[in-house]
Amino acid sequence: MPTAEIIVIGNEILTGDVQDTNSHWLCQQIAGLGGEVTHIAVVGDRVRDIVREVELALTRGLDLLLTAGGLGPTADDRTLEAVAEATGCELEENAEALDMVRRKYEELAAEGSVASAELTDSRRKMAVLPGGAQPLHNPVGAAPGALLEVGETRVVCLPGVPAELKGIWEGALQPVLSELFGEGSFAEETLVVDTGDESLLAPILEQVQRDCPEVYFKSRARTFGPEVKIRVVLSARGEDKAQAQARVAHGREHLVSALKEEGALPGS
Amino acid sequence: MPTAEIIVIGNEILTGDVQDTNSHWLCQQIAGLGGEVTHIAVVGDRVRDIVREVELALTRGLDLLLTAGGLGPTADDRTLEAVAEATGCELEENAEALDMVRRKYEELAAEGSVASAELTDSRRKMAVLPGGAQPLHNPVGAAPGALLEVGETRVVCLPGVPAELKGIWEGALQPVLSELFGEGSFAEETLVVDTGDESLLAPILEQVQRDCPEVYFKSRARTFGPEVKIRVVLSARGEDKAQAQARVAHGREHLVSALKEEGALPGS
Repeated sequence: MPTAEIIVIGNEILTGDVQDTNSHWLCQQIAGLGGEVTHIAVVGDRVRDIVREVELALTRGLDLLLTAGGLGPTADDRTLEAVAEATGCELEENAEALDMVRRKYEELAAEGSVASAELTDSRRKMAVLPGGAQPLHNPVGAAPGALLEVGETRVVCLPGVPAELKGIWEGALQPVLSELFGEGSFAEETLVVDTGDESLLAPILEQVQRDCPEVYFKSRARTFGPEVKIRVVLSARGEDKAQAQARVAHGREHLVSALKEEGALPGS
Repeated sequence: MPTAEIIVIGNEILTGDVQDTNSHWLCQQIAGLGGEVTHIAVVGDRVRDIVREVELALTRGLDLLLTAGGLGPTADDRTLEAVAEATGCELEENAEALDMVRRKYEELAAEGSVASAELTDSRRKMAVLPGGAQPLHNPVGAAPGALLEVGETRVVCLPGVPAELKGIWEGALQPVLSELFGEGSFAEETLVVDTGDESLLAPILEQVQRDCPEVYFKSRARTFGPEVKIRVVLSARGEDKAQAQARVAHGREHLVSALKEEGALPGS
């Protein structure tokens, strides 16, 4: 199963000013494709912090490393500089990326959204990519994404504005994702158990987890109360949707029968 | 300024099943106290992944390391085991923590929320802490938090259920936080600029950032359009609230005057 890590970049997240929602959305997408996200990091805008995180991630033999944020025109948008440093590339202006930026500002100037289409230094900055990177068309904003291959790992740099990140993911990145994830798939199901007490469930879950190692059983802790039920989420990955679903169904059978033996019947 | 890192633990976040909101809330709290969160990591339930992340964080000379998640009664709640391993402690049943767990289940049994107050193995597990750790009363759920000192770093393990995490933060942890953060404080202000084009703002922000290094200027990228304005968030830390606010006010003056010079007037 392909593995991925996500590095989210931006001081505004660490100051608590903005809730990062990009990593959650990316986790959902990757799980849906049958991949496994093994690590998320959030760091600030400092180049050395981003470099350290990219270097660490690359030691872990990933298939996909995603960065989100820090591609814009301002001086504190330094993700690509950091990725270049961490991967031993030089930064260079990319002709294809510059063309994307130019066309975007021509479009914006034509519709009156910006005063001029002039390629100022700040705008040109968005076309400066690590050498060898391929720009990824941004259908929403001006900053292209970037794709580069570092050993076995595809490194994909995405903007932090959620609509732009999603636009690139759903557009320019699709061929890369298809190649990487193939037909692998993920399935999930939730079972509600008639007990408000997670501690009673613990030994049962341990047993079924041993019986069905290909299924992941997770109880969702809730605060206590006579009316409170506990949800158990069963999930599995497989070569395709059918295999993933069959694994979950198998796990569910085991769990239901173990619950019945203990008198903790599945509820509704 | 005290520095903090957060490690969020739980497979359900990496599968995209649950959006982590704890780290965002903790970042807000720490910023409000005048501290700086420098790193957030999200890892799954595997002990070796948690150990690696705790070890890494402890090399960075933090004042505060927070973990969120993995304190419950089930077999996949293994944060304390990992923290013990990473800090070279033995796990041991903590008498004070066991008392907290016992009283909680007596209370729950008395109100009929659980069938029995018996201290089963799963329940006792929640009182097994790294040696030398101090349990932190959980006013909402059964699993106590844990506080331990590792060199200069206070390591605080909190449950993943948001109401429990907040309950410990706002209760048992307050004396620790006061000692750590003292009267340090954080201030923030947002200025709306009458331009939809972040690239025009970039050189102005660079200049004021150089003029006022104690203030952090961040433009919030928005998608383009004639009606779109850009927000600039100014933030600063200080010894107390008054100093932090004075720094932000100073930065705002500089920014407004730089914007007027460039004809990009602050909007409303």
